[in-house]
Amino acid sequence: MIDINKAIEQIDWNRHPKGLYEPIAYTLASGGKRLRPTLALTAAEAIVNGGLINGDAIEQTVPAALALEIFHNFTLLHDDVMDKAEVRRGRPTVHVKWNEQTAILSGDQMLIEAYKQLSRVPAEKLPQVLAWFNEMATGICEGQQYDMEFEHMGHVTLDEYMKMIELKTSVLLAYAMKIGGYIAGADEKQQKALYKYGLHLGLAFQIQDDILDVYGDPKTFGKAIGGDICANKRTALLITAFENADPESKAELLEWLLINDRKEEKIAAVRSVYDRLGVRETCEAVMEEHTALALAQLDELPQNSATERLREIAEKLVTRKS
Amino acid sequence: MIDINKAIEQIDWNRHPKGLYEPIAYTLASGGKRLRPTLALTAAEAIVNGGLINGDAIEQTVPAALALEIFHNFTLLHDDVMDKAEVRRGRPTVHVKWNEQTAILSGDQMLIEAYKQLSRVPAEKLPQVLAWFNEMATGICEGQQYDMEFEHMGHVTLDEYMKMIELKTSVLLAYAMKIGGYIAGADEKQQKALYKYGLHLGLAFQIQDDILDVYGDPKTFGKAIGGDICANKRTALLITAFENADPESKAELLEWLLINDRKEEKIAAVRSVYDRLGVRETCEAVMEEHTALALAQLDELPQNSATERLREIAEKLVTRKS
Repeated sequence: MIDINKAIEQIDWNRHPKGLYEPIAYTLASGGKRLRPTLALTAAEAIVNGGLINGDAIEQTVPAALALEIFHNFTLLHDDVMDKAEVRRGRPTVHVKWNEQTAILSGDQMLIEAYKQLSRVPAEKLPQVLAWFNEMATGICEGQQYDMEFEHMGHVTLDEYMKMIELKTSVLLAYAMKIGGYIAGADEKQQKALYKYGLHLGLAFQIQDDILDVYGDPKTFGKAIGGDICANKRTALLITAFENADPESKAELLEWLLINDRKEEKIAAVRSVYDRLGVRETCEAVMEEHTALALAQLDELPQNSATERLREIAEKLVTRKS
Repeated sequence: MIDINKAIEQIDWNRHPKGLYEPIAYTLASGGKRLRPTLALTAAEAIVNGGLINGDAIEQTVPAALALEIFHNFTLLHDDVMDKAEVRRGRPTVHVKWNEQTAILSGDQMLIEAYKQLSRVPAEKLPQVLAWFNEMATGICEGQQYDMEFEHMGHVTLDEYMKMIELKTSVLLAYAMKIGGYIAGADEKQQKALYKYGLHLGLAFQIQDDILDVYGDPKTFGKAIGGDICANKRTALLITAFENADPESKAELLEWLLINDRKEEKIAAVRSVYDRLGVRETCEAVMEEHTALALAQLDELPQNSATERLREIAEKLVTRKS
């Protein structure tokens, strides 16, 4: 199995001007789940091995896997500037540690570095992979734009929200699967299954994120509980609450949305409205539905140890704590 | 001949979310010289026609030409955010007309759109074109980083300055030529000549820009004269002045660098130091040297109407007023 962390570490960022490359090295060294490259590589393995390892085909997927991880980290870097976020993975964000100009420019260079990795994809597969990668990258930007627009919208429907997270989160996982599989030789039916696995996994993943922000264990969650509530963020929970609320609960929620101090009290109050309306259970049901849809796609793939790992990734997601 | 403005206008930006795409349409509609796509297309023509037009080969260069123009405009958009510039081509910049978040995100999407155009390059040429494009894009980011670092440096040598403008301005023109020629079938010797033509043209272009900022005609220059002097910008003129200055002139320049009000007086005083030291003539000589080096490359190419246009572009540059 390819060690993706090692592959990431092996990229040489000791280049000039240091002011451009150090923030890139800093961002990529800050860890994270490496979910996207893992999905791309595991998809490739699921397609080629059927129990046997075809080293070359997996090896050929590495540049695309790295491109996906670099791209993902680029989006985090620029999103943090746009959202004025000060902390990421327990460390100061780039625009805080350096400055905003550096964050913009190093982010731009990261996006270019993603395409540099892509240029190493086998030539006969490159046109298709590049086109898909561009489609994916466009989806992410569109999703981020919708997400920012939601902040200024009075009402967001659950459909609109799901469409937004599909773009902002899911298409990257979906294309990670599809691109990994395609490079390893997946046929069209398999490509479709890989894509849908990633898409539903992403939706389940984001809804679980929303749930953990309110109901997570502060010891394992890694960030403060209730951050979304304090920021009045449109999440699956808040939108579901509004869609299911009686007039009284609705008024109570609206009132709390206007209160920006008294954070502890606000978190407890909004959570108790969620509890009363059964919001957690409703969202968990949606999340489980998408997890089941992701798992169902695996039946279309060769059954082997890699497919088994894809099953585990989806199942772990439902029970994860952070 | 391909109408590059028409090709740019034909790109459909009427897409959702409008908040993402309208700033892109706005940026690309603001005009400019379209120098980069013109160079790419003219290089292609110079290679294929030898007096005859091979429509297909030129047509195949259009996506790359569009990629170069979109990329160039992306760099202006993000540079304006980093430099906090409020006006570009006589109109408010994107971060002023919309906001900074929009400018960052729409810029990111423009960079992706450049790669979308690239993905339409003929498949057998794509790996090489993508690799060169990435190299070019990297050069631009490195150049912008050096340019920003120069603002905080006490002393910049003319060599350092030339290296910076080579990255920030010239590599884009050089690769525009090389990519255009390559798609049209240029051999390695021709590719080298095309690249060097663009490289020297870019250096001459930037030095002329520096000269016009001080000695241009306010009626034709399009922006206020002396802007670089007011901003204490390290330009070919200021650096040449320091390199040639007697202690007295040096002290006078340093004193003016510390004065940030009295703009008219500052511009006049610094210009009179330049005049005394013959800075304009020295810089013009360097510019003419690079123009001559650019022109000399044309001997390596087929001699036809396109090569003639490349000659005119370089010659016009030396006498341009804006």
